[in-house]
Amino acid sequence: MNTILVTGGAGFIGSHLTDRLLAEKNKVVVFDNLSLGRKSNLKQALQDPNCTFVEGDILNEELLKSLFEQHKFNIIFHLAANSDIARSYANPNVDLDMTFLTTYAILQKMRQYGVKKLMFASTSAIYGQTGGVEVKETYGPLFPASHYGAGKLASEAFISSFAENYGIQAWITRFPNVCGERTTHGILHDFVKKLKKTPEELEVLGDGKQAKPYLYVKDLIDAILFVMSHSDEKINYYNLGVEGQTSVSKIAEFVIEAMNLHAKIRYTGGDRGWVGDVPKFAYNLDKIHQLGWKASYSSDEAVKQAIKNILEQDACSL
Amino acid sequence: MNTILVTGGAGFIGSHLTDRLLAEKNKVVVFDNLSLGRKSNLKQALQDPNCTFVEGDILNEELLKSLFEQHKFNIIFHLAANSDIARSYANPNVDLDMTFLTTYAILQKMRQYGVKKLMFASTSAIYGQTGGVEVKETYGPLFPASHYGAGKLASEAFISSFAENYGIQAWITRFPNVCGERTTHGILHDFVKKLKKTPEELEVLGDGKQAKPYLYVKDLIDAILFVMSHSDEKINYYNLGVEGQTSVSKIAEFVIEAMNLHAKIRYTGGDRGWVGDVPKFAYNLDKIHQLGWKASYSSDEAVKQAIKNILEQDACSL
Repeated sequence: MNTILVTGGAGFIGSHLTDRLLAEKNKVVVFDNLSLGRKSNLKQALQDPNCTFVEGDILNEELLKSLFEQHKFNIIFHLAANSDIARSYANPNVDLDMTFLTTYAILQKMRQYGVKKLMFASTSAIYGQTGGVEVKETYGPLFPASHYGAGKLASEAFISSFAENYGIQAWITRFPNVCGERTTHGILHDFVKKLKKTPEELEVLGDGKQAKPYLYVKDLIDAILFVMSHSDEKINYYNLGVEGQTSVSKIAEFVIEAMNLHAKIRYTGGDRGWVGDVPKFAYNLDKIHQLGWKASYSSDEAVKQAIKNILEQDACSL
Repeated sequence: MNTILVTGGAGFIGSHLTDRLLAEKNKVVVFDNLSLGRKSNLKQALQDPNCTFVEGDILNEELLKSLFEQHKFNIIFHLAANSDIARSYANPNVDLDMTFLTTYAILQKMRQYGVKKLMFASTSAIYGQTGGVEVKETYGPLFPASHYGAGKLASEAFISSFAENYGIQAWITRFPNVCGERTTHGILHDFVKKLKKTPEELEVLGDGKQAKPYLYVKDLIDAILFVMSHSDEKINYYNLGVEGQTSVSKIAEFVIEAMNLHAKIRYTGGDRGWVGDVPKFAYNLDKIHQLGWKASYSSDEAVKQAIKNILEQDACSL
C-alpha cells in the first residue's frame, strides 16, 4: 500500500485524482489551503478511512514539516498551484508563490525526508506562443507567455536539478486545458454566467478563433497513472492531451445550445482573450500514444460533457 | 547617454562589462553584495566619474527600491547570481535566492519603475545533460543538472512572462564557460593551487575527458554588446561561445606547462568532476555567427591566456 500526498487535492483535478487513488486502495493525504479548492469536492473521498484531509498552506514551513514527519510518504502528486492564469497579470507574486515556490518547498522536503517519487502537474503553458505548430515534448525555446507558465517551467527546472542531485524520480505530465465536473472558473463558467444575465446576446473576448484541445478530467487522471506505471526514467515527461481542438466560437455555440437559447454571438475582436493568453495551441501526442494511451473523449465531447456538468451543478445550487 | 544598472558588477564578468560600458561613455551604477565580487575589480572603473558603486543585496527590498528611485535606469544588465555551481549541492537555497529570486526582484522593480530593457546573463547550464550533441538555442527538453542551471532557467521563464505582459524587451545571452582576468575560483585555480602544494603530481577529478568551450571574457563582453545592438525582438536569445572545446586533461597539461613543472597527472576516474556537472558540452553557434559575430580567441587560447593571468595575479599577491 502506497502512502501518497496529494497537494491541491481538494481542487478540481486533485479531487478526481484522490478519488481514483483511493479506489485503487492507496492511503491518501490531501493537503490543500482551500484557496481554489473546495472541501465539498472531497465529499466522496472523505468517506474512505484511507483518506485524510489537512487544510493548510505549503509555504507554511512548520506545517509542511510536521506533515512529512507524521506520514511516511512514498509518492507525492504535486498539483497545488494558482490555476487562474489571467488573475496574476495584476500580481505576478501569485504565481511566484503558489505555482513555483510551492514546488520548491515540496522538493526540499522530499530531499530532507528521503521521498523518492514525484508526479508533477505541468502544463502546455510552458511552451508559450508556439504559433499553432504541433508541439512535441522537446519543443524549444521555452518562453511562457503567462506567469503561470513561467511558474510551472521554473518548477520543472528545479525538479530536474533535484532529480539529478538527490536521486528523486519524477513524472512530469504537461496538462492541456482540462474540463469536467467540479471546475470553478474558466471560459465555460463565464459563458454560462453571461448568458444567464443576457440570454439574447453572448459577448466573446477576442475573435472566437482561439482554439485549444480540451481533455476530459477522468481521461487526464487515467493518463497520469498510465504514464507512471509505464515509464521508469529518472525524469519522465509527457504531453497529456487529446487529438483535435475546440475553438472559442464552437464553445459559445455549444453553451448556447445546451441552455436552449438563441443568443447572438458578438466578438470583441483581437486574436486573444486576455494578455498572456496563447491564441492557438496544438500538442503532438506521439510520445504518449506510443506508450499505449489514448483519450476516450474527443475535445468537443469533453467540452459538451463539461457544459452539461456545469448546468447540472447550477441547477443543484438553485 | 544611457543610465545603466549592472547587478553583480563587481564580479569577474560584471567588472569587465562595467569597464567596457564606461569606455563607451555610459553612466553605470554597479550594484553588488560582494559575496563573490570584489571591489578591487572596479579599481579602474571607479576612477571614472560616471561610475557609482553601491554595495548591497538585491533581495533587500528597501535598498533596491531606493536604487530605482534615485536613478532613472534605461537599461539593466542582470549578472548577479551564485557563480559557484558546485557549492549549492549541499544547499540549493543558494541558487534559489542568488540565481533566481534576484532576477525576479529585478523584474518586479522594472515593472514598477517602467524600465524597459534587460540584458540577462544566462548559461549553457540550462540545457542539462545533452550527451555532447551540438546544442542550438531551440534545444529541448530543458532539464538542467545543477541548481545553478535551474535558477537560470527559472529566471528565463519569468523574464519571458514579464516581457509578454509588461512590454519589457529582453536580451538573453547564454554564456559558456568563461575565463580571463579576475576569476576567483574554478578548475584553473584548483589546478594551480594543487600544483603549488604538490608540484610532482596533479590529481584530476573524473577521467579528464570532460570537455567544454571556454570563451575569453573580453570576447564575451564584445558578444553581449554586439547582440544587443544587432537584434531587436521582444525576446532575443543567443548562445555566446567559441568553436572548439578544451578537455580537462588538456587544461591540466597547459597549467603544468605554464608553471614549468613536470607533474604526473592522476585521474580519480568517472565521467564527471562533481554531481551536477555536465561532462561534455558543445554549442551550436550558427545564430550568433549569422548575426555577424565571432570570437577572436579560440577555446585553447582563452584557457592559456587565463592561466597566464592567474599566475601573474598570484605573483603580485606574494
